[in-house]
Amino acid sequence: MELFKRTLESIGDVDQKAGVAAQCRLDSLTKPPGSLGVLEKIAVQLAAIQGNPLPTLGKKVVMTMAGDHGVVEEGVSAFPQEVTPQMVLNFLNQGAAINVLSNHVGARVVVTDVGIAAEPINHPNLNVCKVRKGTRNMAKEAAMTEEEAVAAIEVGIRLVNKEIDDGATLVATGEMGIGNTTPSSAILACFSGKDITLITGRGTGVDDKGLSIKHKVIKKAIEINQPDPSQPLDVLCKVGGLEIAALTGVILGAAARKVPVVLDGFISTAAALVAYKLNADSQKYMLASHLSQEPGHRIALDLMDLQAMLYLDLRLGEGTGAVLAFSLIEAAVKIIHEMATFEEAGVSNKE
Amino acid sequence: MELFKRTLESIGDVDQKAGVAAQCRLDSLTKPPGSLGVLEKIAVQLAAIQGNPLPTLGKKVVMTMAGDHGVVEEGVSAFPQEVTPQMVLNFLNQGAAINVLSNHVGARVVVTDVGIAAEPINHPNLNVCKVRKGTRNMAKEAAMTEEEAVAAIEVGIRLVNKEIDDGATLVATGEMGIGNTTPSSAILACFSGKDITLITGRGTGVDDKGLSIKHKVIKKAIEINQPDPSQPLDVLCKVGGLEIAALTGVILGAAARKVPVVLDGFISTAAALVAYKLNADSQKYMLASHLSQEPGHRIALDLMDLQAMLYLDLRLGEGTGAVLAFSLIEAAVKIIHEMATFEEAGVSNKE
Repeated sequence: MELFKRTLESIGDVDQKAGVAAQCRLDSLTKPPGSLGVLEKIAVQLAAIQGNPLPTLGKKVVMTMAGDHGVVEEGVSAFPQEVTPQMVLNFLNQGAAINVLSNHVGARVVVTDVGIAAEPINHPNLNVCKVRKGTRNMAKEAAMTEEEAVAAIEVGIRLVNKEIDDGATLVATGEMGIGNTTPSSAILACFSGKDITLITGRGTGVDDKGLSIKHKVIKKAIEINQPDPSQPLDVLCKVGGLEIAALTGVILGAAARKVPVVLDGFISTAAALVAYKLNADSQKYMLASHLSQEPGHRIALDLMDLQAMLYLDLRLGEGTGAVLAFSLIEAAVKIIHEMATFEEAGVSNKE
Repeated sequence: MELFKRTLESIGDVDQKAGVAAQCRLDSLTKPPGSLGVLEKIAVQLAAIQGNPLPTLGKKVVMTMAGDHGVVEEGVSAFPQEVTPQMVLNFLNQGAAINVLSNHVGARVVVTDVGIAAEPINHPNLNVCKVRKGTRNMAKEAAMTEEEAVAAIEVGIRLVNKEIDDGATLVATGEMGIGNTTPSSAILACFSGKDITLITGRGTGVDDKGLSIKHKVIKKAIEINQPDPSQPLDVLCKVGGLEIAALTGVILGAAARKVPVVLDGFISTAAALVAYKLNADSQKYMLASHLSQEPGHRIALDLMDLQAMLYLDLRLGEGTGAVLAFSLIEAAVKIIHEMATFEEAGVSNKE
């Protein structure tokens, strides 16, 4: 609890002056003002986060958190629970989409077992920080106790701190957990007050029957547990997940250290929503990457006033969309460093 | 005319069988089927284009065509015409956004003067293929004769053929031409039949007065010239531009050689629309990159059933959005090559 509290309290505002200076420089470069759109906004945001009008980037990392969900016994996923550890092993063996895409953009994948419902895999590259073997079934009781949720949050904080100590300058969130769109929709239902059918999708691909089960299960979980939207930790404990909590920790930890954090898809955004409700300043350190096929994703991003850059109809998770956005974020940083000014290039400015 | 006709006739269908084989392989990889969304569609499209279930990519190039527009004398742009050659010099000196972003993704910028309204710049890296010094004012007469438009198309075909001969496997379209959103909106008006106010935007940033002038000028150009939408070349001559025609040539040339071509923003998409109307099969070789701030862009993409990947509110041109998409297209190719199958990774498939 101590690390969690200290981290929450140490999240502060960004340096608006550095952001303004970055926009000034962008406006002096050989392009119509604002014509690089979101790339300019990213450069300004990074300047404000780093307190440096010419932001720089070095090591990039994706924090992929794995956990299981008791609620899968209700039949909310198209895949069996054994897939969670199987896919984690696949991450460790470099065979998954997140490995291919991280290699493509030069990022490192940090894989963590924060709550897989199986014995820990023995692999030198796996962080074993298991809080418990999967959550409880939220359709019957609270998914986690407060102690468990805070422990999972602190796993995320500790691990992201370690990466930042080792030089990470850009952090992405990723996850693996069969069934985890269900708790993510439940979290969003609590914070948005929206109808469950509007914010619940097919996850990795359930059919109509599976979707209808998801609706009923989320409704039941909220009725039974009565999570209090004004208490973000209460929502997280009752209808969240261990990997979701760990990602909330990653986001809070990155924000506290003034490092930009790139959100992946729907599950990552649910974790971000908890972070945002715990401390609204954390939003200033977030970048949204892609807009997923999950119908709740756009609603969750809107609640935090975040704008997705990539429209790729992804619905895989792992951090795949977030690392694809790394290339755009690096492009934004190169623009502010490398483009010529109107004066340098001898180009006439607006009439 | 000979090269143009021969190119048009040699555009054929893609290899659907190779596309199906690529989708088969994608479905065997350790992810829910279809969960990589547009990345999977790109891999399948490239497989079909190359006739290879495992498509590969090598050299990448962006063809940036520059030309001027007689219609700027009506006051349709926020920047003076002298900016066209100034920015071309900036491209050649590596100072522009397209240089920074192309370096970022490892692409080469090929800069061509197909119709700048000034004496040619003397620079070893500039292709001087000037058809004439800018188009005529389309608000008063046809922008080009048919001979001029075909000559500009053939510049694009010849130059893209040269790049493909030199090993280019992925081609992007880009342009520079003060005033060129005006002819692009006019082209779209002809082919879509939509109201001019719905498809005309602020270009590089005209104010309300400038926007109102654009509306009037486009209306007048169409009334005076009466372009025939069933004759794409007629539309291009009367309300198009030299750099737009050259890009139509780039797209047709790439399609004829079975090389994928990535469209940049609104102007590139107007050029693509002409190519599509000349030969609908050319669409099978196109990929849309970003959705620009120009309101007509989405309408033009929809007419060709193309889907943008990047939502970055760009409105710069040059090829900037297209080269940013190169990173995503390469990612798609790496996915199909490098991911493990369910069998290889020992992961359970859908229940």
